[in-house]
Amino acid sequence: MKNEKAPTMKDVAKEAGVALGTVSKVINGVSVGKEYKEKVEEAVKKLDYKVNTYARGLKISHTQTITLIIPTLRNPFYAAFANEIEHQVYLRGHKLILCCSEEIPEKEEEYLSLASQSKTDGIIALTYSDISNLVPDQIPLVVFDRYFEKRSIPRIASDNYSGGVLAVEKLIELGCKKVAFIRYHSKYKGESDKRFEGYLEGCKNYNIIPNYINKLDSDNTLEEIKEFLEKNEDKENHRLLFDGLFVNTDYHATIALSMLKEMGYSIPEDVQIIGFDGIKRFYPSDQYVVSTIVQPIESLARNAVDIILEEDRSSLPTVTLLPVKYCYGGTTKE
Amino acid sequence: MKNEKAPTMKDVAKEAGVALGTVSKVINGVSVGKEYKEKVEEAVKKLDYKVNTYARGLKISHTQTITLIIPTLRNPFYAAFANEIEHQVYLRGHKLILCCSEEIPEKEEEYLSLASQSKTDGIIALTYSDISNLVPDQIPLVVFDRYFEKRSIPRIASDNYSGGVLAVEKLIELGCKKVAFIRYHSKYKGESDKRFEGYLEGCKNYNIIPNYINKLDSDNTLEEIKEFLEKNEDKENHRLLFDGLFVNTDYHATIALSMLKEMGYSIPEDVQIIGFDGIKRFYPSDQYVVSTIVQPIESLARNAVDIILEEDRSSLPTVTLLPVKYCYGGTTKE
Repeated sequence: MKNEKAPTMKDVAKEAGVALGTVSKVINGVSVGKEYKEKVEEAVKKLDYKVNTYARGLKISHTQTITLIIPTLRNPFYAAFANEIEHQVYLRGHKLILCCSEEIPEKEEEYLSLASQSKTDGIIALTYSDISNLVPDQIPLVVFDRYFEKRSIPRIASDNYSGGVLAVEKLIELGCKKVAFIRYHSKYKGESDKRFEGYLEGCKNYNIIPNYINKLDSDNTLEEIKEFLEKNEDKENHRLLFDGLFVNTDYHATIALSMLKEMGYSIPEDVQIIGFDGIKRFYPSDQYVVSTIVQPIESLARNAVDIILEEDRSSLPTVTLLPVKYCYGGTTKE
Repeated sequence: MKNEKAPTMKDVAKEAGVALGTVSKVINGVSVGKEYKEKVEEAVKKLDYKVNTYARGLKISHTQTITLIIPTLRNPFYAAFANEIEHQVYLRGHKLILCCSEEIPEKEEEYLSLASQSKTDGIIALTYSDISNLVPDQIPLVVFDRYFEKRSIPRIASDNYSGGVLAVEKLIELGCKKVAFIRYHSKYKGESDKRFEGYLEGCKNYNIIPNYINKLDSDNTLEEIKEFLEKNEDKENHRLLFDGLFVNTDYHATIALSMLKEMGYSIPEDVQIIGFDGIKRFYPSDQYVVSTIVQPIESLARNAVDIILEEDRSSLPTVTLLPVKYCYGGTTKE
């Protein structure tokens, strides 16, 4: 057929019956098992596959590197995300350049300029500043979570809205009648804002009157959370006005947990708590710090790298939202 | 004087009264404040400083990258170390290539081969396999902690011996009479082995009879720690045979802590515990998980990067040990 699209690396992988990463490695000259190499080479021949440099825009010279910009590795969620990105980049025969921006805009900009100088093949960015105008159109760029002015930049995130609905649903399923919500967030808009919308939808579904605090993170965050909890206390009867608490992040959930314990409440007996992110404990390291809506780090990383290396850049998804799940972490009844 | 050594980058920094990183940036064309640039340029002129490519061996083409090989970012100590290395690399106008080896020898070898192909300017390695024969002599390489056959490779580590002595000293100072030690370690030899020697020296200094377990890490580690603790229990009187416990890592200290609590002991009232590493809590994130001997991550990273970028490679230290300190983390009396 004349109109048949030129075969892509994905087609080669399918034909050869191997993973996309294996095809990428063979094509980029990275060593793989002999059997795999032969399978890929046969498929390349059969499909008459050609590496499509044009589709990659102006990027003729490949550096075999992908750059990850994240705020810091001292946050366990970012560290786990970076670990997984490194793994996915490696599987595709590339190397990872790591930038911990520490929220220094000049540092982010310096790393972004690598791309314009063709010193990296693509950028996965979890940044604070709006970087969308600093990166030429032809440079593969994926942003995690954040909205930028240039909305055509591929964005990857967890399905935060469903996560919010799920948190309420789960608390109701576990016997809660009144579910409160605590959210402290950065001033930067992004997909994670939808956790709040999900909470409201969950309340609607179960005829719960929303009861929440939804504010910008500040130096007063701790005092304000304390205030919110105390405002929701019937002190005379030592009872809380809610029996379920959804918190926007595991970090803030841990703070609320420790405050509620200090106020003399038992968790999960008096109140059940669900956080968001999926941070694991230091020990035992297979357990979550709180019951939580877990972000799918492995598939977030895999999809981000896939988008960076996709040859056919004419029809990239602008938004990729990946499913979250609930996991028990000791602050709910199961 | 005819025999005067050619000036190094350090001399320029001293002359200009600026940090070494600033000199590196100016020389490498990275932008710095105008005032700093002028100071450095003046010093370069005054000292007749020339970038010494010969001293760097065969490395004529600089990639402006340094590669860090670490086991994983899912361990908070390695994550904090990687974060600090990235920062130090950035300060010197370089970029960081990150490899999370996940203890896969082929992966380590692949990243090491980058150096032989002149695709990176130097390697900082925290590896499991003995990589010393895989890296050509002229490639700047620094290893963290481990001993390799080729002992001339610069090694950087904490002063583990002093750390071991300090842990015993501190426990005695806090009122302990009998200090036990728990150590589970990998099969790879390194500087951290000296924590045990430090413990023995500490015991000698204070006339304590050593009482320890010192074994290879295995699937049975947890059971064995439990056994050791129970063996040291006078069950009838619900008393332990030691009142101070030094543990080789914060991770194993956390395990021992939770077992002792389960056995019905109060910490630090019945027994005081000191770990090693300096792992911080998830929340409150400025506190340590246990009282601990803290490894100096910032100076470890700074010294490692300095050694990689040192121009005069004729007299590099083969061993650099950096001072540790004791920090309170809730498992000692102060």
